Amino acid sequence: MKNLLKLLDCSKDEIVSILDLADQLKYEKKHHIAHRILEGKSLGMIFQKPSTRTRISFEAGMYQLGGQAMFLTHRDMQIGRGEPIQDTARVMSRYLDGMVVRTYDQQEVETLAGYGSIPVINGLTNFAHPCQVLADLMTIREHFAQLEGLKMGFVGDGFNMCNSLIVGCLKAGMEVSVATPVGYEPHPDVLAFAEQMRAEGAKFELSNDVHKAADNADVLITDAWTAMGQEEQAEQRRKDFAGFTVDHDLLACCKEGVMVQHCMPAYRGEEISAEVLEEHAEEIFEESENRLHAQKAVLVTLMSEKYEILG
Amino acid sequence: MKNLLKLLDCSKDEIVSILDLADQLKYEKKHHIAHRILEGKSLGMIFQKPSTRTRISFEAGMYQLGGQAMFLTHRDMQIGRGEPIQDTARVMSRYLDGMVVRTYDQQEVETLAGYGSIPVINGLTNFAHPCQVLADLMTIREHFAQLEGLKMGFVGDGFNMCNSLIVGCLKAGMEVSVATPVGYEPHPDVLAFAEQMRAEGAKFELSNDVHKAADNADVLITDAWTAMGQEEQAEQRRKDFAGFTVDHDLLACCKEGVMVQHCMPAYRGEEISAEVLEEHAEEIFEESENRLHAQKAVLVTLMSEKYEILG
Amino acid sequence: MKNLLKLLDCSKDEIVSILDLADQLKYEKKHHIAHRILEGKSLGMIFQKPSTRTRISFEAGMYQLGGQAMFLTHRDMQIGRGEPIQDTARVMSRYLDGMVVRTYDQQEVETLAGYGSIPVINGLTNFAHPCQVLADLMTIREHFAQLEGLKMGFVGDGFNMCNSLIVGCLKAGMEVSVATPVGYEPHPDVLAFAEQMRAEGAKFELSNDVHKAADNADVLITDAWTAMGQEEQAEQRRKDFAGFTVDHDLLACCKEGVMVQHCMPAYRGEEISAEVLEEHAEEIFEESENRLHAQKAVLVTLMSEKYEILG
Repeated sequence: MKNLLKLLDCSKDEIVSILDLADQLKYEKKHHIAHRILEGKSLGMIFQKPSTRTRISFEAGMYQLGGQAMFLTHRDMQIGRGEPIQDTARVMSRYLDGMVVRTYDQQEVETLAGYGSIPVINGLTNFAHPCQVLADLMTIREHFAQLEGLKMGFVGDGFNMCNSLIVGCLKAGMEVSVATPVGYEPHPDVLAFAEQMRAEGAKFELSNDVHKAADNADVLITDAWTAMGQEEQAEQRRKDFAGFTVDHDLLACCKEGVMVQHCMPAYRGEEISAEVLEEHAEEIFEESENRLHAQKAVLVTLMSEKYEILG
Repeated sequence: MKNLLKLLDCSKDEIVSILDLADQLKYEKKHHIAHRILEGKSLGMIFQKPSTRTRISFEAGMYQLGGQAMFLTHRDMQIGRGEPIQDTARVMSRYLDGMVVRTYDQQEVETLAGYGSIPVINGLTNFAHPCQVLADLMTIREHFAQLEGLKMGFVGDGFNMCNSLIVGCLKAGMEVSVATPVGYEPHPDVLAFAEQMRAEGAKFELSNDVHKAADNADVLITDAWTAMGQEEQAEQRRKDFAGFTVDHDLLACCKEGVMVQHCMPAYRGEEISAEVLEEHAEEIFEESENRLHAQKAVLVTLMSEKYEILG
Repeated sequence: MKNLLKLLDCSKDEIVSILDLADQLKYEKKHHIAHRILEGKSLGMIFQKPSTRTRISFEAGMYQLGGQAMFLTHRDMQIGRGEPIQDTARVMSRYLDGMVVRTYDQQEVETLAGYGSIPVINGLTNFAHPCQVLADLMTIREHFAQLEGLKMGFVGDGFNMCNSLIVGCLKAGMEVSVATPVGYEPHPDVLAFAEQMRAEGAKFELSNDVHKAADNADVLITDAWTAMGQEEQAEQRRKDFAGFTVDHDLLACCKEGVMVQHCMPAYRGEEISAEVLEEHAEEIFEESENRLHAQKAVLVTLMSEKYEILG
């Protein structure tokens, strides 16, 4: 693996290796076993949108690995003044050992990776959220001790989280059923991948029926109806997503003991009821915590071979 | 101690222990004795207002203690998009080992502390500024070699600094005399505490007369007339605070060799004359420096027992 | 050396010492030889303009030297609320071991250095850009194995980069020929220095003729026509700088194998053609990288004697 731009680029083995390493790093952290594997390495974090979890988990993670993270907003950079991305990519490659990029257009992270010579990690684009889905898979595997054969139901917007969940869960051998409102379907590239997987025997289903997605699900997942940058559509989306709330009624369709995941931030009364959120808070905040461990595994996977230890 | 939200929550012994530890850490720093007591620990700093001293002293302090500090402005966080504070508190508790919060409403730091599982430090609210007052007490004690029995006069706005000075100085066994303009009295909770202390024998006085506050004072303290967030009241405040300038005339009422403290930033010709500021600059910048040492003592007190050393 | 405010303050020996140390630190980094010379030291970075290279190279550099860098924008500081610079200087000197300042007015960095007790490094003002020119000299010396006797031609605005190049190259024993449009001449203090050097035998030439500057040049250097803070003059400047593009035609006047340097960001089709930029990209991005090494040499030179190692 050279970059983590989207899960479509990753093999099943690569995904499982990251999850295994994440489990190990989590164990070591809980038991105070040092793992300064990235000593002397610097990670740049270029963020064009606000962030709580992604930023803090990457910064704390780099520190725990012995390295350095720099939080760089567009506002404070020349890239904000219109420096071409290919120049930024080449300059960054001279100073840094890796980059996390949070932006809108998937093409931007692909271009940075293409021109630069250091690993690029997608920290959220409109197309994909691979770091979050690795954390989700890690949390689900911790809960059920396996992934293969479990049914993941997704209820909500066919946006970045949905795209990455479809790809990640299918690659991990899970059954996937997605329900979106009409007009909010997942990305065509993701649907093409899912069709191909189905042709090879995987179970994949796309509908506009939340009960189909929830039916007998082991894990039910949702996401905010209005993503960053879509604020002006919030009113329309509230209408379009009516009936897509994960609440007690919907959970009743799932398998008993269903797990609920939400990448947060959560909007109570919209995509999830306050009761479901609080009843499943332990699972959901564990999922948040696992961002830290999963991303540390990604960092180690991508950055630990480039240089030997400095310092 | 689990948090440092306000000095009202602290016992005299806890305050004295922090001052003792601060003295020790200052000695060790001057003599290049390493004290990486918080190795492996991460501190989040959530700031809703600008900051020079608080931010830099906490960041440098965490680094000197072997740990990591992350400066997080509201602007760059989901909390800025309306994520409920109880969710932010729980997520932060998964990634961080402590939080410093600079905000307006005291209730916000209390809520964060209530929902989160990590120590919360008040880095300035409208109600209290405990870190600054610990630095003040440290500086006064360095100067006089004791605190008990000294008279602290405060001249100015009965706002966060005044509130915390009343509580901190009374708990430390000092005599307190406060002069504010009419309508700028300290917080009722603080006055109730002071009344109770007076009933137990402490010396406390509140008036609108700057000469009463300055009379025979060992230490004279003031603060800016217009705090952050009150800029639109600046004109009115300049009128209301006429006569509340700490200048040579006022110092003449104090004990000979009076010490002057100011938490900075200072507005010359308003709450303090340029001459007094420059003549007492050494004491005042020592007070600034002691933010570093006092806060390191707070960090060690709150964060050093939670985990053993990682890394 | 106490500060690096402008190259006019530096002797030839000081410049050469920094270049030698920069070469050594670059060698050590490439060979993974630790050099945590500034362990325990904190660097404050006060930036009033956006930055990519300066910020990242200083932050990564301090980390590689074992120290800490804090990126402080005016926006998040009390200085942004009007705290006098002499107070900020004195407070910073209590917390930090050095400061990098990027601002408009050269007087501001001189004042900070005058009031503070810690080293101040000019990270770009309207008058000078000494860190960039040290990186340029390092890159040119790497390329030609010497500096003395080489001809540097500069084509463009007689602004900060031009000012510092004239001083740096002349001090290093190079021949300097500068071409600017009428009205965009270098700073009078720089021209006075150049005249004095010429009186002592140095070769210096100022004209409005790009071919004179390029004629037989070993190194040709340019800079953006519109600097940060001049955006509203961009249209006028495009007219005034017509004919000042570094392109194939102009390179044809230079010595064969001419080296091209550009401090970036570059505006293709304005001060440099896309072809020249890409054909000389390796030299230009090496120049960017050398910011890191040259600045580390500056940091070590200014900051390593103040304290012994802490931690």
